[in-house]
Amino acid sequence: MPDPIASAVQQLKRLPGIGEKTATRLVYWMLNAQPGTAHAIAEALLGLEDGIHPCSQCCNLTSSDPCALCADPRRQHDTVCVVEHPQDILAFERSGEYRGRYHVLHGAIAPLDGIGPDQLRIRELLARLGGVSEVILATDPDVEGDATALYLGRLLQPLGVRVTRLAHGISVGTEIEYADAVSLARALQNRREL
Amino acid sequence: MPDPIASAVQQLKRLPGIGEKTATRLVYWMLNAQPGTAHAIAEALLGLEDGIHPCSQCCNLTSSDPCALCADPRRQHDTVCVVEHPQDILAFERSGEYRGRYHVLHGAIAPLDGIGPDQLRIRELLARLGGVSEVILATDPDVEGDATALYLGRLLQPLGVRVTRLAHGISVGTEIEYADAVSLARALQNRREL
Repeated sequence: MPDPIASAVQQLKRLPGIGEKTATRLVYWMLNAQPGTAHAIAEALLGLEDGIHPCSQCCNLTSSDPCALCADPRRQHDTVCVVEHPQDILAFERSGEYRGRYHVLHGAIAPLDGIGPDQLRIRELLARLGGVSEVILATDPDVEGDATALYLGRLLQPLGVRVTRLAHGISVGTEIEYADAVSLARALQNRREL
Repeated sequence: MPDPIASAVQQLKRLPGIGEKTATRLVYWMLNAQPGTAHAIAEALLGLEDGIHPCSQCCNLTSSDPCALCADPRRQHDTVCVVEHPQDILAFERSGEYRGRYHVLHGAIAPLDGIGPDQLRIRELLARLGGVSEVILATDPDVEGDATALYLGRLLQPLGVRVTRLAHGISVGTEIEYADAVSLARALQNRREL
């Protein structure tokens, strides 16, 4: 394999879910594609690292400061939805159901990975609670996410702010026959009056 | 989504087998990775387009001319293995069974896609037949590959060169129960004396 091809394969292999075979296929596809294709992709990746930084208010990744969501006067100021990752915001925005602000922790408490509260953007969250009446804890429904929500709940409740957690249950469209056991158990525990 | 992120997603989506979701995941992975990761990947892709061109002898993609395989004096000069794509050479080299030269057609005859013999590197193949005693046709075992092999066979046999085609049959490790019908039929047709 010629050096430039080998090093492109080597670099693409670093991406998650892309092994040697896929990387090789992608590189030869780029070599076969219209001239300029690899360049255009490379330019976009270069722009990524230079143009993106955390928003000074919500810690979401942004190219402007404050980010478009924090700068939007139509978003409610009194509600903050706390998520683990910037891409979680995309999911909420796709749902079209939420009109408040966000706060990105950039992770969850995971002692085994050496991530404690100090490694998360919790200080930044506390600093912006003025005028906030509700904090929605939207960390992932796994061990780390639940631990983070528990920690934040204990931290925020004494400050007089309403703290809520996303509902867990079976997802819409799931056939009960195929629902996973944990979600079904949560759906039972959290059942509501008709 | 901030512009640099959106355009990186847009560019990665052009790659085969990578849709919007995977592209988004890759971009956020790069933003979370060690600083310099996206840069290193981008640099490798830039080097790809600038440093790679077809070898003047075998038409394999290379960063030197002639390519490492054509320049290697230990490779037999009298045998040429004709393949469709540069990456086919990697497969042969992995097998460790072949010590001759290669020739890359950069495609196969496919009238529906507008690819005729003139679009392939057949002229370059004819120009290097001096001193060649055998041409192995290693195009893919599909309609286009078979048509290309047939065409090349008719072209080369009158020139007094031995023309062979790769054996087709069931692959090593295949259980006969699960062998595909076409391969099994070929294995029967091409059966050999024990």
